[in-house]
Amino acid sequence: MEALLEEILDNASQYKKLGKPASYIPELAKGDVNDLGIYVISSNGQAFRAGDYKKQFTIQSVVKPILLLLVLMDNGIDEVRSRIGVEATGKPFDAINVTDQTLLSQHINPMVNMGAIAMCSLIKGKDYNERFERLLELTRKLAGNPNIHLDEAVYLSEKRTGNKNRALAFMLKSYGMLDDDVEDVLDCYFKACSISVTCKDLARIAYVFASRGKLPISDERVFPAELARFVNAVLVTCGMYDGSGDFAVRVGVPAKSGVGGGIMAVVPTRMGIGIFSPGLDEKGNSLAGTKALEELSHRMYLSIF
Amino acid sequence: MEALLEEILDNASQYKKLGKPASYIPELAKGDVNDLGIYVISSNGQAFRAGDYKKQFTIQSVVKPILLLLVLMDNGIDEVRSRIGVEATGKPFDAINVTDQTLLSQHINPMVNMGAIAMCSLIKGKDYNERFERLLELTRKLAGNPNIHLDEAVYLSEKRTGNKNRALAFMLKSYGMLDDDVEDVLDCYFKACSISVTCKDLARIAYVFASRGKLPISDERVFPAELARFVNAVLVTCGMYDGSGDFAVRVGVPAKSGVGGGIMAVVPTRMGIGIFSPGLDEKGNSLAGTKALEELSHRMYLSIF
Amino acid sequence: MEALLEEILDNASQYKKLGKPASYIPELAKGDVNDLGIYVISSNGQAFRAGDYKKQFTIQSVVKPILLLLVLMDNGIDEVRSRIGVEATGKPFDAINVTDQTLLSQHINPMVNMGAIAMCSLIKGKDYNERFERLLELTRKLAGNPNIHLDEAVYLSEKRTGNKNRALAFMLKSYGMLDDDVEDVLDCYFKACSISVTCKDLARIAYVFASRGKLPISDERVFPAELARFVNAVLVTCGMYDGSGDFAVRVGVPAKSGVGGGIMAVVPTRMGIGIFSPGLDEKGNSLAGTKALEELSHRMYLSIF
Amino acid sequence: MEALLEEILDNASQYKKLGKPASYIPELAKGDVNDLGIYVISSNGQAFRAGDYKKQFTIQSVVKPILLLLVLMDNGIDEVRSRIGVEATGKPFDAINVTDQTLLSQHINPMVNMGAIAMCSLIKGKDYNERFERLLELTRKLAGNPNIHLDEAVYLSEKRTGNKNRALAFMLKSYGMLDDDVEDVLDCYFKACSISVTCKDLARIAYVFASRGKLPISDERVFPAELARFVNAVLVTCGMYDGSGDFAVRVGVPAKSGVGGGIMAVVPTRMGIGIFSPGLDEKGNSLAGTKALEELSHRMYLSIF
Repeated sequence: MEALLEEILDNASQYKKLGKPASYIPELAKGDVNDLGIYVISSNGQAFRAGDYKKQFTIQSVVKPILLLLVLMDNGIDEVRSRIGVEATGKPFDAINVTDQTLLSQHINPMVNMGAIAMCSLIKGKDYNERFERLLELTRKLAGNPNIHLDEAVYLSEKRTGNKNRALAFMLKSYGMLDDDVEDVLDCYFKACSISVTCKDLARIAYVFASRGKLPISDERVFPAELARFVNAVLVTCGMYDGSGDFAVRVGVPAKSGVGGGIMAVVPTRMGIGIFSPGLDEKGNSLAGTKALEELSHRMYLSIF
Repeated sequence: MEALLEEILDNASQYKKLGKPASYIPELAKGDVNDLGIYVISSNGQAFRAGDYKKQFTIQSVVKPILLLLVLMDNGIDEVRSRIGVEATGKPFDAINVTDQTLLSQHINPMVNMGAIAMCSLIKGKDYNERFERLLELTRKLAGNPNIHLDEAVYLSEKRTGNKNRALAFMLKSYGMLDDDVEDVLDCYFKACSISVTCKDLARIAYVFASRGKLPISDERVFPAELARFVNAVLVTCGMYDGSGDFAVRVGVPAKSGVGGGIMAVVPTRMGIGIFSPGLDEKGNSLAGTKALEELSHRMYLSIF
Repeated sequence: MEALLEEILDNASQYKKLGKPASYIPELAKGDVNDLGIYVISSNGQAFRAGDYKKQFTIQSVVKPILLLLVLMDNGIDEVRSRIGVEATGKPFDAINVTDQTLLSQHINPMVNMGAIAMCSLIKGKDYNERFERLLELTRKLAGNPNIHLDEAVYLSEKRTGNKNRALAFMLKSYGMLDDDVEDVLDCYFKACSISVTCKDLARIAYVFASRGKLPISDERVFPAELARFVNAVLVTCGMYDGSGDFAVRVGVPAKSGVGGGIMAVVPTRMGIGIFSPGLDEKGNSLAGTKALEELSHRMYLSIF
Repeated sequence: MEALLEEILDNASQYKKLGKPASYIPELAKGDVNDLGIYVISSNGQAFRAGDYKKQFTIQSVVKPILLLLVLMDNGIDEVRSRIGVEATGKPFDAINVTDQTLLSQHINPMVNMGAIAMCSLIKGKDYNERFERLLELTRKLAGNPNIHLDEAVYLSEKRTGNKNRALAFMLKSYGMLDDDVEDVLDCYFKACSISVTCKDLARIAYVFASRGKLPISDERVFPAELARFVNAVLVTCGMYDGSGDFAVRVGVPAKSGVGGGIMAVVPTRMGIGIFSPGLDEKGNSLAGTKALEELSHRMYLSIF
């Protein structure tokens, strides 16, 4: 299996430099496009790895399924559905889904920035510090890694430059979809995006979604199976931004990418996969990472379709 | 199993009259909202049925996955991908996906009208009669029913009133995405939508997609597994119009609805389902049909996520 | 005065080759970008001219104000207002002003193609031949030139290739905004765009709008003053496509351009101007023509603002 | 003349209660829909008035042409044109003119909120207090009224609830179209909208635009004529929001409305008009005010077209 992973990374490495690291904050632009790593945890809990799987990177949008899980655990499916839609928007992740029409909850989804910002306000907690701490704790629990922490430099950089996210948050607020102080909510959102992880962390988190709520080895149930099905379904329809349809036909598994270069791929009942390569395609998905996943899917018949 | 189906139809029947039959052509408006039927073929080829499963209705958009399959068989995945996108558009099925920007192939997908009209021109054949006949033959083959035929009244009604589809076709033509005579292409498209089927037919067709290309019982392979995966993936992301995300979280299987009231649902490796109830929700999906599928999915753990 | 016109054409001639002739039909692409002509009729009926003012070209969208005038004369302001809006759309002339929303009359205006096509159906007449003949007669009357005729080659070329206009017409029809046969209406529209004119013709027509309905010299009233005010107002807000705002601040008079290279400019109470140069800017307005008008406006204080 | 004004207000008063005061801030919702007043200054400086012309109201968007004038005086036409467009957007005043495309200066204009916010940053001044003071001083100068002041209650109310404007400002900032601190810029904008005026003030300001830069009676030139032509042109194409086309055909003069119920109408070389009635139509323009202007225009042939 590790030989297969090595071979797949070898084949994908030609795409590493065809992508570009995210450049909207200086911290992300530093990403080394030579990096490419993968970590796989199979259904019996066994782990396989290849390449730069130990590298740290910020989770960015890969935190969105975890955030969605937390607000589902805190509020239940019905309450979350009443506030945030689940349809693909047909638009990029940071699009303003409103022109001269009223903004409605069904115009946003949990995998675009506007939906994720709205979700921060649905986490239970006495203030936004506690809300972020609860999100960080859940991330650690899913990953089985108590050392997961915030990348302060990225967080401060996001906070300083995140004006489009501020615009999105004020848009939500002006349509009555966000009650709390915008800067408080955004602080939680910027921190959430700046959690530092490795391929192994993502693979472990993916594993829990794949096993529909149970941790590897111990089989401890962290959340009900129906919440996993909910999150996995959202990942297939909206997880890879406006490249989700392409990813579904080429790879065929629930997955979430982040502009930090990470992808978390969930193969229900079979495996959790974490992959990392900072060169992004024009839709913001890791280019070599997607190529590696495509080959892995073909070689191991991973597509759920 | 049939007792379960009866019970599910019973529970769903309260929704029958909350939907409305399609009214854009008089023939469809005649649909009886009291009708509700289901037909299931399980992985060993065994069949179960309940309610009005024998009723005839026009296939409408449920023909789109068959049309997609045919053009994939005729042209291969790469050629089809170069002409028609696979992303959800975030818009209704008959939306004009262009305002002041150039229309590109990636702005349409095989499950919206514009994409389906474009696909008609990709069927191999010496003229549009032959193209339609080949589509009809494939439909009969997948359904195992040589008696499937055109509903002339619906076809003529569609042809007479289909001005929005004419607009869509001329739009494609003006952007160089349709070479042939618009009225010829549309004639094929209107006929395709007017094929008359039953729940049993849809269940049989769904079964072949679920078994990734093999007919029930005989196990005869009709098309390669990778084409089934392609079509099933497109169904999950775009099959239920701009209600696809909602359907994915609530039901969780590849499916296609038509404004005739039919839904074809594909449970990979497990079953093919055909369902019919002409009352539609505001997105054009059978309301009682969707409710019945939702309960069936929960009761039998059908979600692929 | 003619010396001034010569000087202005001299100054504008540097822009002649920076524009491009319309290329969507071969006949228009033949336009000679070296052509630049102007014709001015002042309030006492005196005429001034310079450059290639004798060249024939097709009227194209400059027919829209004449078409608007005719339907106003035939139906009255209230009836026309109930069917066609007057707001700038903020979009190019051939934009599809509809995505997933209902198309309403207020979404189109008489200076965009969709509005002009709808207006063809409002001309009184027993058939579309008679309707076009009445439009041609009015054009001749306004221009004082009984020899104005159809350019058959351009007409046939437009008819053969006008698929985007067909899409627009079917869109109108599908929303109940066009009752008649689409090809009949479009035939009238394509003929209307293909009327062959000179700068002198446009200047004479402009003069009648400037004098609010009276012919030069004879002072014969052709239409009520309030219709002139209506048309002139529409020209200022929408006459130069989505370059109307720019034209208003730079030139400041009601005007209409066509992709044939003509511009008709109306200086209320003072003069009618016809100008011609086939090189277009990216919005479809004659580039050198606009530059010449800008200088003429500054030199003679023509702005109405 | 005052008898005519009385008669016109009488006729328009039936529309007073068909409109609704702006309700987005409590201060504006207090507007008395029974109020209707008009003030006219003719070309020789003579004044006429009728109705509630002494009532105070906040200037709201009527400040936009003054703001545009100030930034034109401070920066020149070319510099302003390089940063802010002049085309009608075809959308409401507070629309987000961006979805998934880059926001460009040409997508905004000085009469929509986004453009006005951007203009605040173009006023010369060492800080935003000084910038606002300079705008207030210019307003006083144009109105010939040194007592014009800020309505503190409206200003604080706008500041507290102006989240959509915050969204617009952060959008500008994220696209590099606003350098300064968003809250500083918005503070200036909210103050600008909250300047308290009367019909007389608006009539005097309109007079100066009508006389192309000269004060009444003294004939003192405050700004060059070409800036008046620029502002008046922008008013005709964009001054009445997405009702500008309708206003051009019905009234036919440059004008600006505000949600406070005021309208300033400029009749070049002839008169300045201030009108007030807080009931607004669905586009945000004073309903009875527009009706009164329409009749005044017809009775006195004010249309410039």
